[in-house]
Amino acid sequence: MAADREDTLAVQTLAVDLGDRAYPIHIGPGLIDRPESYRPYIRGRQVAIVTNTVVGPLYLERVRAAIGSDHVIDCIELPDGEAHKTLAQWAHILDILLARRHSRSTTLIALGGGVVGDLTGFAAASFQRGVDFLQVPTTLLAQVDSSVGGKTGVNHPLGKNMIGAFYQPRAVIADTSVFATLPPREYRAGLAEVVKYGIIRDASFFDWLEQAAPQLVARDSATLMQAVRRSCAIKAEVVAADEREADLRAILNFGHTFGHALETLSGYGTLLHGEAVAIGMVQAADLSVRQGLLDRDAAGRLKALLTTLGLPVAAPALPQAAVLEAMGADKKAVNGRLRLILATGIGNVFATEDIDGESLQHTLAAGSRLCC
Amino acid sequence: MAADREDTLAVQTLAVDLGDRAYPIHIGPGLIDRPESYRPYIRGRQVAIVTNTVVGPLYLERVRAAIGSDHVIDCIELPDGEAHKTLAQWAHILDILLARRHSRSTTLIALGGGVVGDLTGFAAASFQRGVDFLQVPTTLLAQVDSSVGGKTGVNHPLGKNMIGAFYQPRAVIADTSVFATLPPREYRAGLAEVVKYGIIRDASFFDWLEQAAPQLVARDSATLMQAVRRSCAIKAEVVAADEREADLRAILNFGHTFGHALETLSGYGTLLHGEAVAIGMVQAADLSVRQGLLDRDAAGRLKALLTTLGLPVAAPALPQAAVLEAMGADKKAVNGRLRLILATGIGNVFATEDIDGESLQHTLAAGSRLCC
Repeated sequence: MAADREDTLAVQTLAVDLGDRAYPIHIGPGLIDRPESYRPYIRGRQVAIVTNTVVGPLYLERVRAAIGSDHVIDCIELPDGEAHKTLAQWAHILDILLARRHSRSTTLIALGGGVVGDLTGFAAASFQRGVDFLQVPTTLLAQVDSSVGGKTGVNHPLGKNMIGAFYQPRAVIADTSVFATLPPREYRAGLAEVVKYGIIRDASFFDWLEQAAPQLVARDSATLMQAVRRSCAIKAEVVAADEREADLRAILNFGHTFGHALETLSGYGTLLHGEAVAIGMVQAADLSVRQGLLDRDAAGRLKALLTTLGLPVAAPALPQAAVLEAMGADKKAVNGRLRLILATGIGNVFATEDIDGESLQHTLAAGSRLCC
Repeated sequence: MAADREDTLAVQTLAVDLGDRAYPIHIGPGLIDRPESYRPYIRGRQVAIVTNTVVGPLYLERVRAAIGSDHVIDCIELPDGEAHKTLAQWAHILDILLARRHSRSTTLIALGGGVVGDLTGFAAASFQRGVDFLQVPTTLLAQVDSSVGGKTGVNHPLGKNMIGAFYQPRAVIADTSVFATLPPREYRAGLAEVVKYGIIRDASFFDWLEQAAPQLVARDSATLMQAVRRSCAIKAEVVAADEREADLRAILNFGHTFGHALETLSGYGTLLHGEAVAIGMVQAADLSVRQGLLDRDAAGRLKALLTTLGLPVAAPALPQAAVLEAMGADKKAVNGRLRLILATGIGNVFATEDIDGESLQHTLAAGSRLCC
């Protein structure tokens, strides 16, 4: 880490180009403590900060201090973890907003990781048919993935993210100082999505990640800022081209159909989302090789980079029928047929329903020998 | 009624101009039974028809037959009435869609009045972050009001329509034959919203309504079709200019802040929504007269037309403090201040926070002597 260098890193701003739903992503160290991070985006006097019991003690008072006492600030602390990304927690946020008489001009602030962001975003989307919200993502995964693109929602016992909305924040405040406080496993899980941006769309970013891997592992500030900026830029570019996932946006799901099945069957929370995505990307690469789309070297590079970054690349032993079932039940299933994102090279992936069943079975049976 | 003339009435189509969310409203007799009412708007094989226990027995099989057996059609029958416009019923729809494995390319069809439309629309908005839906409104109120404009949602114990989304249907199928089956009280309640369109934006439509009142009371088909078409056109025009109720769209709430308070305090269901709006419009006109904005003759014409159409124009006796509280708790309250739509003439209303407290108290105390 290089905390002493942080002050010299300038804040960078990316624009997510979505017409009248356009918004900026501000990236840099120390943003959480700056009043100007929030104030341009708060219309009324009322603010509700939604966070969880882990992030709240670290950052809540700092956010409150930065917003300032001329606002009426309510704080809502949710239990931590994917298991709580439920309709019940979402309804709890709405109950509090109503009990505290928040009006249509209130602003919600999501302070936390992806779960807090998804819940708060869906609450903002549905409270009085839509109020403003800001994302203040405090994990690497949330900064590069869930805070960009407007996907909000909750899980249902019958599937992940089955209930929700496309709803854009007014701004994303990505403070790159927060990584210092992340537990190692959660930090590494976030790197999986960073790698994903290279493989789906940017070979030169992938090359850079291979070279920068030691600095990423060491959480070097300047390297991380560049990784976050480039990841957000790629995601913003894809989302701007296809906000509602008609076509192109589906490539962001590379590794996710496999990954969701692993998450579901292992029980939410056993594997972190990023860990499941890491394994899922290696499975997708393995299947791409088996279907003759991707050369083995490229698949090997993906597996090697993830390994260097400390991520799992072997699938846990699970009943194959159950995995297939879980993949078919995934919302990416189109009219009941399985649709996957496969790779043709580093930086090139595409959505297809042309899946070879036998190859898929081999991939699912490969366990720790994926891409070998 | 003039059922024999129905076949000679051509179907009319209005466009709601909302850019990439634009959609048509088809208006005419017999549309429910025509395959071409639905099929251009159904993308996948799966369809879910949401209706209630009153409307279902009348129309469900006819809709199913028109869509045809090459689709997989699930039917969801909800209990009837505003008391069931709840998160629980909304979640029930989502549970069934998931249990029956509906995919993102499913189409929901709202077959019923405003409650079914609002619930189904919000379910469509939030199922897998948004799927297609069609509105098939079977009440006059739903045809001229709730099916146009994209407001969807449910009530909360702390307020009406507090949870929901702006979400547009793919099309609205307004079959003007359905009025024959409406109970008299429900039919009359729908006329209140028709009158509203005249008073808020179209003096010549208001003049026409005064002349056409006897035919409207008699449910004459040609007269009704014209009333529905003009009402939808006015609403579509206002919504196209201001989809998310930033400013202009608020005029559609004329009489509604008063009306919602009456509904809430009488207990949902005691007064029909249209009845509460009728009284609320007379209260708004009364307050407009007291504040020197509207001449007494215009207010008298409004009250007389509503009376001719069989609608209530006297406020029930309710504790004034409770009414004020209910009005202030309404979601149209801006930053805690009361915002009302007041009239300056037939066809001219505006939103204002410049409310004279004493005049408002007189209006609320006026009971049956409003606008006199």
